[in-house]
Amino acid sequence: MRKIETCLSPDLIHLHDLKNKIVVVVDIFRASSTMVTALANGVESIIPIEDLETCRRQKKRDFLIAGERNGQKAEGFDLGNSPLAYLDGRHKQKKVAMTTTNGTRAIAYAKDNAAEVLVGAFLNLEATAEYLKAKEADVLVLCAGWKGKFNLEDALYAGALSLSLGLSHDCDATLAMEALYEGAKDDLANFLKKASHAKRLQNYNIEEDIDFCLSLSQFQVVIRLENGELKPKKVKVLNKLQIKPGQ
Amino acid sequence: MRKIETCLSPDLIHLHDLKNKIVVVVDIFRASSTMVTALANGVESIIPIEDLETCRRQKKRDFLIAGERNGQKAEGFDLGNSPLAYLDGRHKQKKVAMTTTNGTRAIAYAKDNAAEVLVGAFLNLEATAEYLKAKEADVLVLCAGWKGKFNLEDALYAGALSLSLGLSHDCDATLAMEALYEGAKDDLANFLKKASHAKRLQNYNIEEDIDFCLSLSQFQVVIRLENGELKPKKVKVLNKLQIKPGQ
Repeated sequence: MRKIETCLSPDLIHLHDLKNKIVVVVDIFRASSTMVTALANGVESIIPIEDLETCRRQKKRDFLIAGERNGQKAEGFDLGNSPLAYLDGRHKQKKVAMTTTNGTRAIAYAKDNAAEVLVGAFLNLEATAEYLKAKEADVLVLCAGWKGKFNLEDALYAGALSLSLGLSHDCDATLAMEALYEGAKDDLANFLKKASHAKRLQNYNIEEDIDFCLSLSQFQVVIRLENGELKPKKVKVLNKLQIKPGQ
Repeated sequence: MRKIETCLSPDLIHLHDLKNKIVVVVDIFRASSTMVTALANGVESIIPIEDLETCRRQKKRDFLIAGERNGQKAEGFDLGNSPLAYLDGRHKQKKVAMTTTNGTRAIAYAKDNAAEVLVGAFLNLEATAEYLKAKEADVLVLCAGWKGKFNLEDALYAGALSLSLGLSHDCDATLAMEALYEGAKDDLANFLKKASHAKRLQNYNIEEDIDFCLSLSQFQVVIRLENGELKPKKVKVLNKLQIKPGQ
């Protein structure tokens, strides 16, 4: 039977076998939300890069370079890590090299070990669920977390995705996050504003980013890693998303 | 301000600073529940031991030896890992050497790094909360997990303990588990029966153990590690446990 599992931190990924699985990497605040928004708004592709200096060198290769460290735009970079910067379509047909604190590391690990890597966010929850429903491989949600620690927003996304897929599971993290999302979904923003990362971001005056990152299914694209580049793929969503308890 | 934090797996403990903290190790199914029950029913002390063979050698030193691997009593051992075996008081004034799959490892790590180590279970939730309230040190709940993975029952205990203490926190794991416990507490047994470890144990026909491990505050003792030995300390519980939202 097809299964879904959740890995709550990149520091626990060694406990999971990624082989033949589709890994959905999630880093809600803000890497994966920004990637989804950029690629849904005309950016041609994104190369996720682990460290700041490698990313900086891509400037010479005619990439836009995007990066933040500890919530701030990195020095000399074209873009920080705000999804809102891509909404007006001004970066259409550009290639972006992007590095972030937690998300890129999770993508790099998944790339080397899984059958397929997606990047998911609440912003494309419906499209990602629709895309996965048409596949046969088992699914693993890899939460980027915060410096290795459990992160509320990423874990809640795992619960939301699992509920929308309705796959079976034998994974306590999935079970817990389904129940937690079920309880929090009607007031996700307020529940998440108590989370440590949201509090950290509130210090940078980016509440608008937070609200945007928590809005469901704004974009009907799935984000896939193809030869080291993240690319968008339009998904036709036939039915309104139904979030139902897992089996 | 005094704080509480939760570590969801021994594999994440390197991300936490244990110095000057009181660490509460929890392994609900069944190590910490069995330790609490044994020490509340007259066992003099328990030495937690990481491996089976070292534990076996304690037999010569006039210890009762208790141990399980994968839910079964280890060969040649006096006791397995069932809390029920201690209820009739037949092991009064005995010393027990105990090894288990996950719990002992967590205790061993905490012993080397924390100011004080307790072993907690639902069975002595109230007494542990009462004991901690009278202290000043920060608290860290260390979930034993299952082979490094997140475990629902241990994590829910962290939520229950945090709610009963009402300390402040800046820890998403604590925040999540408080909310999860709040939602599940009225039907804890049924919620937890869906958990992977409970399912595993159900295969061994020990549902009675599971129900017992989930009963709240049966014993008014706190379990402390003193010079490598777990010992009971009676706690006077003045008020009925009040579980309230954390600040």
